[in-house]
Amino acid sequence: MIEVGIVGGTGYTGMELLRLVARHPKLRLAEITSRAEAGTRVDELVPALEGAVDNVFTAPDTERLSRCDVVFFATPNGIAMESAPALLEAGCRVIDLGADFRLRDPAVWTEWYGMSHSCPELLEEAVYGLPEANRDALPGARLVANPGCYPTAVALGLLPLLEAGALADGPVVADCKSGVSGAGRAAKVATLFCEANEGFKAYGASGHRHLPEIEQTLARVAGAPVDVTFVPHLVPMTRGMQATLHVVVDRPLDELEALYRQRYADEPFVHLVASGGHPETRWVRGTNHCRIGLHQPPGRPDRAVILSVIDNLTKGAAGQAVQNLNRMFGLEETAGLEGLAYVP
Amino acid sequence: MIEVGIVGGTGYTGMELLRLVARHPKLRLAEITSRAEAGTRVDELVPALEGAVDNVFTAPDTERLSRCDVVFFATPNGIAMESAPALLEAGCRVIDLGADFRLRDPAVWTEWYGMSHSCPELLEEAVYGLPEANRDALPGARLVANPGCYPTAVALGLLPLLEAGALADGPVVADCKSGVSGAGRAAKVATLFCEANEGFKAYGASGHRHLPEIEQTLARVAGAPVDVTFVPHLVPMTRGMQATLHVVVDRPLDELEALYRQRYADEPFVHLVASGGHPETRWVRGTNHCRIGLHQPPGRPDRAVILSVIDNLTKGAAGQAVQNLNRMFGLEETAGLEGLAYVP
Amino acid sequence: MIEVGIVGGTGYTGMELLRLVARHPKLRLAEITSRAEAGTRVDELVPALEGAVDNVFTAPDTERLSRCDVVFFATPNGIAMESAPALLEAGCRVIDLGADFRLRDPAVWTEWYGMSHSCPELLEEAVYGLPEANRDALPGARLVANPGCYPTAVALGLLPLLEAGALADGPVVADCKSGVSGAGRAAKVATLFCEANEGFKAYGASGHRHLPEIEQTLARVAGAPVDVTFVPHLVPMTRGMQATLHVVVDRPLDELEALYRQRYADEPFVHLVASGGHPETRWVRGTNHCRIGLHQPPGRPDRAVILSVIDNLTKGAAGQAVQNLNRMFGLEETAGLEGLAYVP
Amino acid sequence: MIEVGIVGGTGYTGMELLRLVARHPKLRLAEITSRAEAGTRVDELVPALEGAVDNVFTAPDTERLSRCDVVFFATPNGIAMESAPALLEAGCRVIDLGADFRLRDPAVWTEWYGMSHSCPELLEEAVYGLPEANRDALPGARLVANPGCYPTAVALGLLPLLEAGALADGPVVADCKSGVSGAGRAAKVATLFCEANEGFKAYGASGHRHLPEIEQTLARVAGAPVDVTFVPHLVPMTRGMQATLHVVVDRPLDELEALYRQRYADEPFVHLVASGGHPETRWVRGTNHCRIGLHQPPGRPDRAVILSVIDNLTKGAAGQAVQNLNRMFGLEETAGLEGLAYVP
Repeated sequence: MIEVGIVGGTGYTGMELLRLVARHPKLRLAEITSRAEAGTRVDELVPALEGAVDNVFTAPDTERLSRCDVVFFATPNGIAMESAPALLEAGCRVIDLGADFRLRDPAVWTEWYGMSHSCPELLEEAVYGLPEANRDALPGARLVANPGCYPTAVALGLLPLLEAGALADGPVVADCKSGVSGAGRAAKVATLFCEANEGFKAYGASGHRHLPEIEQTLARVAGAPVDVTFVPHLVPMTRGMQATLHVVVDRPLDELEALYRQRYADEPFVHLVASGGHPETRWVRGTNHCRIGLHQPPGRPDRAVILSVIDNLTKGAAGQAVQNLNRMFGLEETAGLEGLAYVP
Repeated sequence: MIEVGIVGGTGYTGMELLRLVARHPKLRLAEITSRAEAGTRVDELVPALEGAVDNVFTAPDTERLSRCDVVFFATPNGIAMESAPALLEAGCRVIDLGADFRLRDPAVWTEWYGMSHSCPELLEEAVYGLPEANRDALPGARLVANPGCYPTAVALGLLPLLEAGALADGPVVADCKSGVSGAGRAAKVATLFCEANEGFKAYGASGHRHLPEIEQTLARVAGAPVDVTFVPHLVPMTRGMQATLHVVVDRPLDELEALYRQRYADEPFVHLVASGGHPETRWVRGTNHCRIGLHQPPGRPDRAVILSVIDNLTKGAAGQAVQNLNRMFGLEETAGLEGLAYVP
Repeated sequence: MIEVGIVGGTGYTGMELLRLVARHPKLRLAEITSRAEAGTRVDELVPALEGAVDNVFTAPDTERLSRCDVVFFATPNGIAMESAPALLEAGCRVIDLGADFRLRDPAVWTEWYGMSHSCPELLEEAVYGLPEANRDALPGARLVANPGCYPTAVALGLLPLLEAGALADGPVVADCKSGVSGAGRAAKVATLFCEANEGFKAYGASGHRHLPEIEQTLARVAGAPVDVTFVPHLVPMTRGMQATLHVVVDRPLDELEALYRQRYADEPFVHLVASGGHPETRWVRGTNHCRIGLHQPPGRPDRAVILSVIDNLTKGAAGQAVQNLNRMFGLEETAGLEGLAYVP
Repeated sequence: MIEVGIVGGTGYTGMELLRLVARHPKLRLAEITSRAEAGTRVDELVPALEGAVDNVFTAPDTERLSRCDVVFFATPNGIAMESAPALLEAGCRVIDLGADFRLRDPAVWTEWYGMSHSCPELLEEAVYGLPEANRDALPGARLVANPGCYPTAVALGLLPLLEAGALADGPVVADCKSGVSGAGRAAKVATLFCEANEGFKAYGASGHRHLPEIEQTLARVAGAPVDVTFVPHLVPMTRGMQATLHVVVDRPLDELEALYRQRYADEPFVHLVASGGHPETRWVRGTNHCRIGLHQPPGRPDRAVILSVIDNLTKGAAGQAVQNLNRMFGLEETAGLEGLAYVP
């Protein structure tokens, strides 16, 4: 069994990790830390885990964590970069579900995250953990930067197009929508039930931290900068994310569909829906899957609308982290990720 | 008092009309028809109206309806066009909340609505009831085509831009989101609570009936065709609609804001939110208001993102119909539309 | 115009008061205080009030408040009792939407609210503002204790039964359900969207502060203590409250219905639904109405189930406060409370 | 592998069965029937099952079904009783998730279900599949009547009390609440999103079909009739059910807790929450677990409030059916039922 540590298990991403680790056939939760909840049983905080998780939260302690084979950071930005060097030094691998190692350029990181990076020397080594784009870099990786939720949904929606050079000149509009769990479990007025329920709004329309990550990923795949506009929105539901991608393309819809179908034929977690279909977030709820639909606006043979849906907490965070771990440790890539969405 | 008739008062648009008419200081509900509910008291079907509406549904009867001063059609497409000529003949005015008189070109109507138009000779006379674009055509109008919900949200978001010629070359992306009430009150599996709750999806991405209406309106205002892509989405909430409009512009954000502020300064129902703000659908719930926010993506001085929110049943349907009636009959434009959204 | 002050306008009860006061024909909002938001425009915090409320929050100041004709306290428990004496002294009337003046016995208050009462001498004067039980005590009252939401729903469901002595021996079970807005607008994890959404739970089953208030009210009406068990639950919706009252009765259902119908015949805000009907909270959303349904379990002629629904923020708080004000100042009891629920 | 057939896989209960069977280590879905969807791939109707279920719906055919080892009926009441005799005759076992075999007395069945029973001779043989009450009758059973959702939640909440004779004289009030999925997947206005969302109501307060089943189960356990009143309510959420049970007891709370803890110590799916806790439906979402909390109203040592929560589609239907199958076929009782609820 691979011994796993989780730093920050009291947020939604950490809770989702707990659920997945608890049922993973090859993982054992050795350590889970929370400064605020040290001494509390995990299943007291998350009663849904009663009978499945016996651990007790401990105060973060690098020495204890470093005995794990791998440590997940499900922490606010800026925490993982403080602890990662010592853990790596001790031979422990690290998967950061935060943003600390996602951007290659520390100056861009500072611009968007408002702090200077404490270990820029690790940025090059860090593998960007989007297996569909980066699968071969994962086995043996010591440090993985788990992608953001929006960048995951956007990148999976555009990968085949960019790899094939089928994107024509013109802006890419990434109009994205997320369930409220993406805002985290911190107590804030804006995410109270009565504030988020029965309403819809955009946020961060003048600039959101996931934009540079999206730009970096698309540019890597395309081999050149991609002109992308990104606007996130908040949907009154707990889980789920959709990227609606409006693009200019160089080929008709049927060829695009063939391209996507072929590109994702062997991917365990990415699927094209039937022609003309609209994927729904509830089909992937609680799973590591991404479902994609392709459309062409009427009378616009040079345009396409790509619909890409994921669960923001699973493929957009904890599920992808487990998928990355599976690759890093040579396990079956789908291990522990076979659960089905409940419908309804 | 103006005597009002409503044809089709059992759907959500009709119910919203009932609520507004019941509290309007100058209107009296003389007639309300429903073939299925003839003989039923209105407040038996809609208990929220108990004490406010005494009427009983009657079977549709042109003779009785024609005694009204004005008749609203809150019916499926294709019904109003069958009855309107006789009512107009009898001196009764007509406001159609359906699509029968929205498109000027009967061939386009047939293409999108799948039936031939029964009174194309009325299409030219019909006033497109978007008061912000068409205010002066309403007084005295006999026949008003009440705009669709998406076309209203999109048009109000783009009017100042188009009128000022500030839209630069490049596609307009209208990524739109609607609450479930837009799908109507017919019993369908797709809009059951357990199907629509906790999920998000696009629909009609390959072509939706509101597209030609949007194109027609934008072209009228701009004086030339506008290249627009329209994708609607379903949000798990009852009421509310947002159009997120991604555009290429010829001037910086502060000038755009000044333009919008000036254009809408005297509009009773359209307001710009504070700079940098994101309007929320819940702020306009149950009201006839539209709130608009303007943003510029970081580092893209030639782009703008326009956020336009309305209540799909009010400004997007019944409220706008009452606003149109007010103009048609020389009443205060805001009469009966002063109700405030409840928050939360 | 009656000059109104509101202390604590940033919670949900205060916002609902603002909405009602803004459209009340005889009230003018003279003063609204909030320590945290002093200097902020009200419509910046509550954009739904833009155009309807011009006020700016001020720091609480007894001198300024005392110039109002009446001051509403929409504050946490323990605040109103500190300020009320000075305001009353200055000739200003007070309506407390909190619990400070609801319980007659200061010892009981201390037991349940954990603080000693600062002006027990006012408790006798304070009128318990449930107009249906206490209408004649309101005109001219200086100090009104606005009832809690649960006590309102329970009392209105039981009034006719208790007044008629139709309650037989046996416990009254008040199984109550509230929307999340009842928990207030303070930032707490337990009322985050993702915690309250898609879940149902009881709370306070071992004792809730509304119990002694319910007992006091029922005892007053019945003229003797009533054996009542009260369990509140949290429903994943924003507004709405239902009390399901399980009672033992001395007469058959048709006589009970006649009793209720007669008792509430002249009440402007309390109505019996049609025989066999189940009232729904959405019928009274945003309104001051209470709707009641009566049922008899099959084969149990001595039992009844009484269903009583209100909007917890309106009849359960701010609407009832306005109704009380209307009575205190000799206005039409329904003034400013004519708004209809929107359906859907 | 055990070959499984499902009759009626297009409702919510059937879909939940599909999810559980698809991941069960010992079951193979051999046959799934639907008259309306014959020829359709299951994963076309339920895209969440793509990759997990390869079957195609077939028209119901007793001959084909009888080749299965066991057939689940997830059908409207009255269907299973028509087909069961032939299947049993052919050596196939039957688990009915409908009501056909739940009531022992065919006259009571007819009274509540409005049809005469077509095979009353099987009623005695049918095992009532509540394993916690009836575990030993399941191995080898040919015909199992899977309990209703409300009867399951109520019975599990009362079992220890009844078995110990700790229920004192006085009525049991079962005030129950269900998510909307309990109403099924048929297209009806009453369960449209816009009708059920943001509202709460009781239904069936004058008599609901689950009452005689509750009475029968409680009487069997108690050895005498139990005086129970049952009122169900509809909660605006998809899944989840709570029974709030108000009872008169003969012993103090700590003894009750000890009683429950001991009674359920070895049950894999029934758990007492920590003292003073309130179980939440979301903790058991999508799982076969029941969580129970015990409370005593303040100052009422002879009363108790028992809170029992389940997922209406899982422990209340399909999960319990699989648990029954596991017992019938000598499998591990928890096989295929280890999935954890996702939180949030």
